Amino acid sequence: MSSDETKATNIVWHDQAVSQEKRWKLNNHKGCVVWLTGMSGAGKSSVANQVEMLLNQNGIRTYLLDGDNVRHGLCQDLGFTVQDRAENIRRVGQVSKLMADAGVVVLSALISPYRSDRDQVRASVQEIASFHEVFVRASLSTCESRDPKGLYKLARAGKIKNFTGIDDPYDEPLKPDLVLDSDNKTVEELASETVAWLEKKISL
Amino acid sequence: MSSDETKATNIVWHDQAVSQEKRWKLNNHKGCVVWLTGMSGAGKSSVANQVEMLLNQNGIRTYLLDGDNVRHGLCQDLGFTVQDRAENIRRVGQVSKLMADAGVVVLSALISPYRSDRDQVRASVQEIASFHEVFVRASLSTCESRDPKGLYKLARAGKIKNFTGIDDPYDEPLKPDLVLDSDNKTVEELASETVAWLEKKISL
Repeated sequence: MSSDETKATNIVWHDQAVSQEKRWKLNNHKGCVVWLTGMSGAGKSSVANQVEMLLNQNGIRTYLLDGDNVRHGLCQDLGFTVQDRAENIRRVGQVSKLMADAGVVVLSALISPYRSDRDQVRASVQEIASFHEVFVRASLSTCESRDPKGLYKLARAGKIKNFTGIDDPYDEPLKPDLVLDSDNKTVEELASETVAWLEKKISL
Repeated sequence: MSSDETKATNIVWHDQAVSQEKRWKLNNHKGCVVWLTGMSGAGKSSVANQVEMLLNQNGIRTYLLDGDNVRHGLCQDLGFTVQDRAENIRRVGQVSKLMADAGVVVLSALISPYRSDRDQVRASVQEIASFHEVFVRASLSTCESRDPKGLYKLARAGKIKNFTGIDDPYDEPLKPDLVLDSDNKTVEELASETVAWLEKKISL
């Protein structure tokens, strides 16, 4: 079924007594979704972790949703086919949306290689909070030379199939909200850049 | 597949720079999951809304996950078969867990009729935060006389199948953390009772 259909019938939308405004006011900042996309090894998780640390030091409520971590729980029933990847992104998008609504600055770090999947998340999140697409850009050679999990090596040897950048495409964002130059800058530089750019966007 | 298997391979658990302790400290209270279970019409959503209002007034970060509301997003691909109900509960449980980890007092109001589903959520949440099962108890006759959505009438007429309490069982909690007597008390009374009981549990 397409992502805008609801299978269940006999359900009604309950209005909630505590508004988003009240929840956000308690935190003294807005919730939002910062979606870091890029190839394996581009530095998404490293940057997200550093950004979260800086935000936490500034009193901002944060949560990091890491592509690998959610696969241990919410998305444990999903693999890496095109369909499963889409459902993985959709669910993480929905969780990010709910958390942003709750007042959290959600850092979602996922390869999320397909533009259509990311665009669907954007459209859904934007119903209730801002969505910021951050492109963690690194060349394939940079990613491959880092190869933090040894996965490129396995993919080149044909031991992993459907690996983004090798035998599965990565659709670069056409209009990212922020581009981080991971070929030429350190994690610390990229994180500072992100926080400086983000702070105005989350102030009430 | 059973809920403790992970389909995806080649994934690693990333440790995160900002600990749960740091996130909870910022809020000056713990995150946790308050799981309200009971039949349709027992008053779960009404109580949860009132509880959320009182907590928000006390400066507590909250979020209400309503059974119907999540079916419009995260669980829109699921219906009401035994299997779909189980997956619905599992996903809401996982979202509740992540939100509690972020520092939110999550109020999850779902019929969640099967004991085994609730027990699985409890086990999963308890890996990282407390799980409080709140049984919103009301007799079938009370629920049926309220019938806020007109669903009992439809179920009695055979127009809805698998309806909890009519042609699908509700497993009462064996050891709930709190029982709310919805036959004899008002929503306001039950909410005050819940908040008084909860406050010690979430203080740092």
